[in-house]
Formats: sequence, structure tokens, C-alpha cells
Amino acid sequence: MNERDDQVRARACLTAVAEPGNTWLAELLDRHGAARVWTALAGGQAPPGTGPVNADAGPETHRAMERTWKQWRARAERVDPDGLLGASAERGVRFVAPGDPEWPGRLDGLDPGPYGLWVRGGGDLRNLCLRSVALVGARAATSYGEHVASEMACTLGEHSVVTVSGGAYGIDGAAHRAAHAVGATVVVLACGLDVDYPRGHAALFADVARRGVLVSERPLGATPRARDFLVRNRLIAALTPGTVVVEAGRRSGALNTATHATSMGRSVMAVPGPVTSALSVGCHALLRDHGALCVTGAADVLEYLAGEAGPEPSGPVRVEADLSPETERVLAAVPRTGAGTASIALECGGDLEGTMRALGVLAAAGLVERCAAGWRPTRT
Amino acid sequence: MNERDDQVRARACLTAVAEPGNTWLAELLDRHGAARVWTALAGGQAPPGTGPVNADAGPETHRAMERTWKQWRARAERVDPDGLLGASAERGVRFVAPGDPEWPGRLDGLDPGPYGLWVRGGGDLRNLCLRSVALVGARAATSYGEHVASEMACTLGEHSVVTVSGGAYGIDGAAHRAAHAVGATVVVLACGLDVDYPRGHAALFADVARRGVLVSERPLGATPRARDFLVRNRLIAALTPGTVVVEAGRRSGALNTATHATSMGRSVMAVPGPVTSALSVGCHALLRDHGALCVTGAADVLEYLAGEAGPEPSGPVRVEADLSPETERVLAAVPRTGAGTASIALECGGDLEGTMRALGVLAAAGLVERCAAGWRPTRT
Repeated sequence: MNERDDQVRARACLTAVAEPGNTWLAELLDRHGAARVWTALAGGQAPPGTGPVNADAGPETHRAMERTWKQWRARAERVDPDGLLGASAERGVRFVAPGDPEWPGRLDGLDPGPYGLWVRGGGDLRNLCLRSVALVGARAATSYGEHVASEMACTLGEHSVVTVSGGAYGIDGAAHRAAHAVGATVVVLACGLDVDYPRGHAALFADVARRGVLVSERPLGATPRARDFLVRNRLIAALTPGTVVVEAGRRSGALNTATHATSMGRSVMAVPGPVTSALSVGCHALLRDHGALCVTGAADVLEYLAGEAGPEPSGPVRVEADLSPETERVLAAVPRTGAGTASIALECGGDLEGTMRALGVLAAAGLVERCAAGWRPTRT
Repeated sequence: MNERDDQVRARACLTAVAEPGNTWLAELLDRHGAARVWTALAGGQAPPGTGPVNADAGPETHRAMERTWKQWRARAERVDPDGLLGASAERGVRFVAPGDPEWPGRLDGLDPGPYGLWVRGGGDLRNLCLRSVALVGARAATSYGEHVASEMACTLGEHSVVTVSGGAYGIDGAAHRAAHAVGATVVVLACGLDVDYPRGHAALFADVARRGVLVSERPLGATPRARDFLVRNRLIAALTPGTVVVEAGRRSGALNTATHATSMGRSVMAVPGPVTSALSVGCHALLRDHGALCVTGAADVLEYLAGEAGPEPSGPVRVEADLSPETERVLAAVPRTGAGTASIALECGGDLEGTMRALGVLAAAGLVERCAAGWRPTRT
């Protein structure tokens, strides 16, 4: 395993021990690299280079850091790196780290950014996010809100703009369903990609994964807690050049996403609705008090994004990748009838992890896609 | 008749010969005074002081002015000043000119302003407009729009903010009806105050006139033509510190009122609605492209007007007027059972015009009000 693989592997392991968005860990990664941090954790050692990092911290902060590090170390003891990546690969879940071809450049604007992202699905996260917009809103949406979200997501999809949203009922679900009908969509989850939360969206997630992607900062098996949704919301805002709030009550999580978008200098758009509807109160507050742009349909969104999202591609998004010899070998090993990652690795003579990463690149390039059996060459 | 009466009388006559908002006439009035202009017209003479006024005008403009002057002269021949004011007074309609106590100060921001205003009703135009807002919108409103207009007008009225609007079906009517239920309202018409256009609002106009006022730049008997509504709209915008567009299609006249408000530096507010409603398209365009303030109810309007409309009065608006001896005489002549203007004039020994003006002042002071018979002392 080379130095780069080492770093990526360490980042994957760190998603299993630390909460997403921990500023201290982000700082440690910046200063010492993931591999060194992980080695210290897994080896029961002290955090690397505590000197300069903690120079300004008071004794209280020091104690809190000690507690946190201890907790991470306890969790690290139970992490089996090979098992973590292997089990993920077996379920069609790849790990994408900063610097990878599939890593969305926009995430560099996020501080603290994700340690890495777990990704599932036939689409390429980076490509899908290039021309994208976040469509967010209330879980307990009205039929008006779901109608507007559907219309908007569908028309945006027809103009090759990808919908990015959470996985909740209401606006999120309506947007993904409509976007999926015409193209790819990006679902950002607050739990592990095998958890299917909410349960009623299991079939939708499976559908979405065919062309689009499911993304999470958290490893397989992680169940969602209240704070995870808030941390997740910053990721939705960060992946896109703009966030549209379709319908939101006075204290909707969608407003949290909009706040993140504002703080990153991304556009915040709001769809007006009846002033008699409690589910439009949040949208009107954004328009009235927070300088949100008023959007009444996909045309308005496209106009606002025109300057930010790059030119409209003439056809479907597909990367003409320069494939490495190893990736070429993996591609040759993918049977027309489809096969699981482990069988493909066996067939091409590579290891599981390398094969999984190669499949990610191939999926990103539009050369392979997910199927019931695992992966197959993309059908045109 | 004194000099002032002469000027006012001339202005009243001019409303019967020239279209409202004629810039040339406004200029002539500024330079020469209404009496001199009227004398020239009624005497079949040339316009006064043509030299400096027309200095920059080309020959084409000169010919157009000649045609216009000729047309006014022809109409002036048919105007009987005594008949005009007498017939108006008999129908409870008074004439208010710039400089009169009832003249709204805000109209001085309008160029060209009205030559004068015909006013009917027990309220005082100037006082009513002090804390007011224009609520305008589509004739073919939806039940949503009418609901919002009613709620808003009613709550504003409860906070002593007077609704100013046109007399049309839809938003105008809904706003006036609700505002009238809790206080006074100002109806600005594009026709003579005896014309009752639209016919279906005759009863509403009669109701409104009890506490509020009906206003028009046009004399009794004048029927409304398409352009009159547009000229009228500038008056609605000018009378108020802000205009709220409740519901408006893509080409609604309400947008015309909003444009006038913007050009006079008054606030423009828009009520959002369903993006699926064609009747909210105009409101959303104002929010999106014209910097209108988003208002979702009376509370937002009150907040925006707080700095502009002066302090909220603690009780109903009523002027403690210093009455002139003549006005005192007229007040003493108003019987408890009510009487027409002519009978009151006869009773107090004044002329019709003076009595009419005194009744206007008394109504403004809240001391007399309209009744079926004409005028009666205000019942408390």
C-alpha cells in the first residue's frame, strides 16, 4: 500500500471514531496528516504534536480534548480497517477522500470539511455537483410544497442541473423522486448508507443509486441522531452553488441549511407561498429578513445559477478519463451480466480496496453502473 | 368672493375641462394661478403668458397645445361654475384645493399634482391619509387574495392605519369592506363621485362615505375611461407613505400603482402567494426584480411604516379645530335629524359654497357626519 492509500484508509477509519465536523480533528489532519493521527489513536498513543495546536487552549479545553481523545481511542480499538473498507465495498459503498478525482472541489470552502465521504451509487459525486442546486424544505410539507419541489427538480434535471438534498420525507423526497425521473440526483444522508433512514425511502434510495449517488460522512451502520442532521445540512449547502428553500416552517432544518449556504457565500433562494401557510413562514422570513432571492420556478433558479454553475453541457455528463492500467484491467473484468466487487477483484487479480477505488473512477467516468448483481458496463 | 375663493372656484372648473395630470395645465397654474387661466379659457382668450412656458417647444408641440387649448375652451363654454359647485354640494361633494386644511400634504410630492380633488364623505381626507397605506391588487382576485386583503385592512384599521385603494371588485373591494368594518377608508375613484363605478359597489361607496371619504380628480358625472385608471393610480400612490400589492397578475394595474410609488420614493410592498397562482405573478416579480419588501401580514406593514407614518394615535383620529365664526354658525344650523347642504345654508344665512366648505371643515374635525338627509352632528 502506498503513502496515499495509507492516508485515505486512515481517513476512512477516522469517520468511524470521530463525529463529523470536529474542528480539532480537522486541525490535526491539516497539521499531521490522517495516517499519523490514526496511528496514534490505534496505537493507544497521545495526540501528535500537541504543543502548537493547543498553545492558546485553557485547562478546561485541555481536559475536554483529553476526554475526546480517550473516547476516540476506545472506538479506534474496535475499528478493523480492512473490515470497514471491505464490508463497505461489498455493499457498493466507496470511500472518497480529499484529493480523489471524485472529491467535489466546492467542499474545500467548508471548514471543518469532511474527513472523507462514503459514496454509494452509479454517479460521480464531483461531476454531479458541478452543475447542481440544493432543494431543501420541510418534512411535513404541504401538497403545494411537494408540487413545487417536483416541478422544480424535474425542470432543473432537464437542464442538466442536479438536485442535491437530504433523504427525508416531504420536500427532500419529492425533489429526488422528480429529479430521478429525468436524471441523476445526490442524496446526502446523516446516517450510514446502509441504514435507509427513513425506512419508507429504502426503495427511493435504491433507485437513486442507479444513476445518482448517496453520500454520507458516516460509516456503514451509523444511525442518525438529532445533531447529525444539522452537521449534514452544512454538507448539502457546501456541495452546491446555491440552496433553494421550497417550504419551511418557522424553525425548519432547511433554514439551517440556508444559514450554512449564506455563511459560505453561496446563493440562498426561497420559494414564496401562501402567507396563510405555516409551512411558508420560514421562506418568507428568508425573503423579508435575510436577503434571500425570490424564486418562483426552475427558470428563476437557472437564471441565478447562470453565472455560477458553469455552461450548460450539451449532453449527459460523462468524463473522458485517462484510465490507469489497473483501472483498465478492472474495467475488462466487469462482466455484461454484472458482478459484485469481490468477484471482479478476483477476476482481475487485484485486491478488494484497489478494485473498489477503480470501480469508483469507472463509475465517475460513466463506464460502469450499479446493477442488482453489483457492477456492470454502462448500457447506452 | 375673495381672491382665494376665486382661485379655488377656478380650479374646480378646470377639473371639468382638462384631463387630470396634464403637465401643461399644471405649469400654467403654477405660473399664472388658476383664476387667470380660467378667465382666459372662459373668455375665449389665448393661454396666458405663452412666451416663457413654450420657449423650448417645437412647432409640433405648439400645434398640439393650440389644439388642446381650443378643446378646453370649447368645454369651458359649457361649464357653469355656480352650477358645478352647487350641484356637487347638493350631493354632499365638496371641492378641496391645494392649501385647503383638508388638502393632503403628501400630494405636494406629485408632479403634476391634481388641480383639486372632489371629496365625498364624513371623514377628513388629510387626516385619514396621515397614517395610511395603499392596499391594491387584481380585480379578478382569488379568494386567497381577498382573504389576505381583508385580514390586512382590518388589522391595519385596528392600529389606526387607514386603507387607501381604488373602487374595483376584488382586492380593492375586499380591503375597503374590511377596513370600513373597523374604521375609516379612502376610496380613490377614476370617475365622478356620483357615478358609482362599478355599479355593484354603490352600496359599499355609500357605506364608506359615512366615516371615510371617496375622492376623485374628476367632476360629477364623469365616466371612467381606460386611461383614467392609470392616472388615478398615481393618486393612490401619492396619498400614502407606502403601497402594498396584495395580488396581481403579470400586467395588473396594481403594478402601475407600485411603479408610481417607487418613482415618488414611497415604500413598495408585495404579498407573496402560491407560485402556482397567476394572480401572484406580479407580486413575485416585484419581490424578485424590483426590490419590493416582502410582507406577510399587517404586522410587517406596520413595521415598515413605523418610521414613516408618524406615531400611532391613542384614540380615533379627531381634529380639535379652531372654528371660524362662519363655521360655528354652520355647525349651529345642522339639525339633529340631519339636513341637506342647501337647507343648512338657508338656515344659517350663508351662501351654498361657503356652507359646503364649512361642512367640510366640520366633517374633518369629526363634528358633523353624513346621513341619509345630508349632514347631522356626529353621534358619539
